[in-house]
Amino acid sequence: MNDIALDERLEADTFPVTELPLCRVLLMNDTRFTWVILVPRLPGVSEVFDLDEESQQQLWREASALGAVMKDAFEGDKVNIAALGNVVSQLHVHVIVRHKNDIAWPGPVWGMGNAEPYTADQQASVRAQLLAEIDVLNLA
Amino acid sequence: MNDIALDERLEADTFPVTELPLCRVLLMNDTRFTWVILVPRLPGVSEVFDLDEESQQQLWREASALGAVMKDAFEGDKVNIAALGNVVSQLHVHVIVRHKNDIAWPGPVWGMGNAEPYTADQQASVRAQLLAEIDVLNLA
Repeated sequence: MNDIALDERLEADTFPVTELPLCRVLLMNDTRFTWVILVPRLPGVSEVFDLDEESQQQLWREASALGAVMKDAFEGDKVNIAALGNVVSQLHVHVIVRHKNDIAWPGPVWGMGNAEPYTADQQASVRAQLLAEIDVLNLA
Repeated sequence: MNDIALDERLEADTFPVTELPLCRVLLMNDTRFTWVILVPRLPGVSEVFDLDEESQQQLWREASALGAVMKDAFEGDKVNIAALGNVVSQLHVHVIVRHKNDIAWPGPVWGMGNAEPYTADQQASVRAQLLAEIDVLNLA
């Protein structure tokens, strides 16, 4: 396990869920959306195309697979997958379950008011649900 | 060449640039951003994970490669790559060159005021520049 430092802002805004073969899986501490962030454990990478071809494919494989199971588990209407990085330069990919009645729909989630943090119980519950989904993925 | 119909809204907001092995390449008719949209020529696909594994990889390969050459050609500070699809359900991936002095920075481009259309000359010029970049890619 490569121990690359996590950007401070990502660290402050999320809590850790688990590790995939390439990426850390973080959950945004915001009950308004089921919103996961994947962070490749590689140093000095900002753009997707800074990764070699194999790591790029693994990154998208992890993001797509997570999106598919999350849409199902959280009964989403749509999944948003995005690598933006205008604020946090450390490469990270957003995987967000969207609902037609969520506060930002049909707009994007970024910059939509303030996050509403999870309670400790909620956090444990959503993390367990995510882990159960991720557990059955074959991503190695 | 598969002749899948293009969503009406995508058709209205963009003009065609070229075809990659999997995707149509469209340019958003908005001079505020160099903003390309990739649309896989496959029917009935809304989520990235609706594609088979091989097509998913090809989609991201095309998006990443395009992002890399566009960042270079248009001297971007960052590239945003995103599959959202909350409004237009036909699967499409945004590839957007961002600049620190663009009107939306550091926020996302979606929903930022009104598009500023290209003149015919501008359109021809940016299309030629994109084609020159795409021409040297090996994406088959």
